Amino acid sequence: MAILVTGGSGYVGLNVVEALARAGREVVSFDMTLPPPVAAVELSSLPGRVHSVDGDLLDAGALDRAFHAAPIEAVVHTAAVTSGPAREASDPARVFQVNVIGTIGLLEAARRAGVNRVVVTSSGAAYGESLYRPGLMEEDATPVLPTTLYATTKYAAERTVRRLAELWRMEVACTRLGTLIGPWERDGSSHAQGVRDNFGPHSQLACIAVAGGEAVLPAEECTRDWVYSADVGRALVMLADAPSLPHAVYNLSAGIDWTGDIAAWCEVLAARFPGFRHRTAQPGEVPNIHYTDRARSLMSVQRLEADHGFVAMRDRAAIHNAFADWVGQVGRVWYAS
Amino acid sequence: MAILVTGGSGYVGLNVVEALARAGREVVSFDMTLPPPVAAVELSSLPGRVHSVDGDLLDAGALDRAFHAAPIEAVVHTAAVTSGPAREASDPARVFQVNVIGTIGLLEAARRAGVNRVVVTSSGAAYGESLYRPGLMEEDATPVLPTTLYATTKYAAERTVRRLAELWRMEVACTRLGTLIGPWERDGSSHAQGVRDNFGPHSQLACIAVAGGEAVLPAEECTRDWVYSADVGRALVMLADAPSLPHAVYNLSAGIDWTGDIAAWCEVLAARFPGFRHRTAQPGEVPNIHYTDRARSLMSVQRLEADHGFVAMRDRAAIHNAFADWVGQVGRVWYAS
Repeated sequence: MAILVTGGSGYVGLNVVEALARAGREVVSFDMTLPPPVAAVELSSLPGRVHSVDGDLLDAGALDRAFHAAPIEAVVHTAAVTSGPAREASDPARVFQVNVIGTIGLLEAARRAGVNRVVVTSSGAAYGESLYRPGLMEEDATPVLPTTLYATTKYAAERTVRRLAELWRMEVACTRLGTLIGPWERDGSSHAQGVRDNFGPHSQLACIAVAGGEAVLPAEECTRDWVYSADVGRALVMLADAPSLPHAVYNLSAGIDWTGDIAAWCEVLAARFPGFRHRTAQPGEVPNIHYTDRARSLMSVQRLEADHGFVAMRDRAAIHNAFADWVGQVGRVWYAS
Repeated sequence: MAILVTGGSGYVGLNVVEALARAGREVVSFDMTLPPPVAAVELSSLPGRVHSVDGDLLDAGALDRAFHAAPIEAVVHTAAVTSGPAREASDPARVFQVNVIGTIGLLEAARRAGVNRVVVTSSGAAYGESLYRPGLMEEDATPVLPTTLYATTKYAAERTVRRLAELWRMEVACTRLGTLIGPWERDGSSHAQGVRDNFGPHSQLACIAVAGGEAVLPAEECTRDWVYSADVGRALVMLADAPSLPHAVYNLSAGIDWTGDIAAWCEVLAARFPGFRHRTAQPGEVPNIHYTDRARSLMSVQRLEADHGFVAMRDRAAIHNAFADWVGQVGRVWYAS
């Protein structure tokens, strides 16, 4: 039996597809675009079997084709518009169409295909205003006050799938993801099909490292609730396979203090890529590295560990080494493509 | 200058249009259907001027026609699908299309027309799981955990208009309405164009009272956070006119204990409508009056009073008398039509 991954050519989706392919599983990857060639080559070297189906999440016929490309036992739904302020101001309805109506359409297609288990990627962004208050964010206790349209659609999709799971008797879990760092992030703004408006600072630095050049960092570091992207892929597969889903929502992040991580990542890159230099911007100078938000508080990761025994990598040096290995092997081509 | 009321033929909308017409104002009522004849006759007897424009909220051209039917200074947005479980299970996407994408389209149309002030009707239903916990519900402090799709769309629309107001520099306030009792409620399930699946017990009883007959009540009374519908109309007009909107969200209800209200309302109807009888169902008997939800906790109504000096009617006898007057005069025809 196969797992269907929507958004399989995107940042989260590629990590899920890779985790499945690495475990020798059969995967149907559904996306508007086929996997980028660099990723396709990597995936083809792994023991699993990946079928790629291109189509629009809002096209019921395309979804049905994906559900019939292999015998599907569960879905990991990562397809989304990850919108920034410009896209939200210029085309707000589209963000809702894809992120909420698209999720409804996916559940309808799963129901038609008799597939009962769907894992939906939500986002820590859903906490919204609560992200900038002190204290750990807990799934039920922390008020969910989304500020951006992206975050609003993520919370709306959570509550929607919860309701439809009840009405349609499906098994659904939503994961509020921390901010991913690691393999397979692309600068969406540079791709015609890009629907990911944010490009994280670790990847920005990796880009400069493989190209050779100087990173000029903002004077003040900004930390987020980061999590290694390959861990997110593994966790989503684990939930797709889990014998039961005791909770409807799980925070999914590393749950560790990331203070000083950008400086540490620069040192790792500098040691591996001799052409890479980095310094802090002078007063008045415009940095060429930017942070995509303010610092955020951390999510509690207790529930996912208690229910499913899942713990993400928490050793920052190990994360940096794993990511730097990937940057050296795959990232050289990936970031240039 | 005129006020545009979307959903002007619906329950909340007719109360807003009536409040405006009563105050001698100019109104553009926009709805999929023209106002029901009974309402049109009533409205024509009032000093204001009501222009009716029929069109679909999802049709940008129809919205533009509404904005050009008179010089609009503000919008009261009440158009929505008030969905029950059957509709949510059979056509979930439609609930989102109308309640969220429709709200985005309305704000876009307001922006095109240069109209800056929009008052959006949300619902106490948005509090969801919190409604069934003890304690007053406060706009910011109480976790918003919508359970139904209707409630999810209402919260999503709130956060969406807040975001768009920030991006587009508009003045927007959302009102979380208590459960309306009073004039202009229709049993949506009996109308082809009905998009209101719930029909409250006070109106169910008024229907039986004007037709003459016996109401068989459930053994256990269920109270809600009720508010007189004409008050909701007045409050929404007040917010459309308010010099400023210090908060983005306001609870709007009576904020009083309604224990025993169904029994009291039956007595008022019995005194005025000799053909009306009422009793409690015997064990095993199916009542012909039903409650549309479980008992709910109350919303705090302090913010609306503090910011805008608005207090809804809190004298239950006065509400019953006002509603019974309407039932005797207009309701006789309204409920039969």
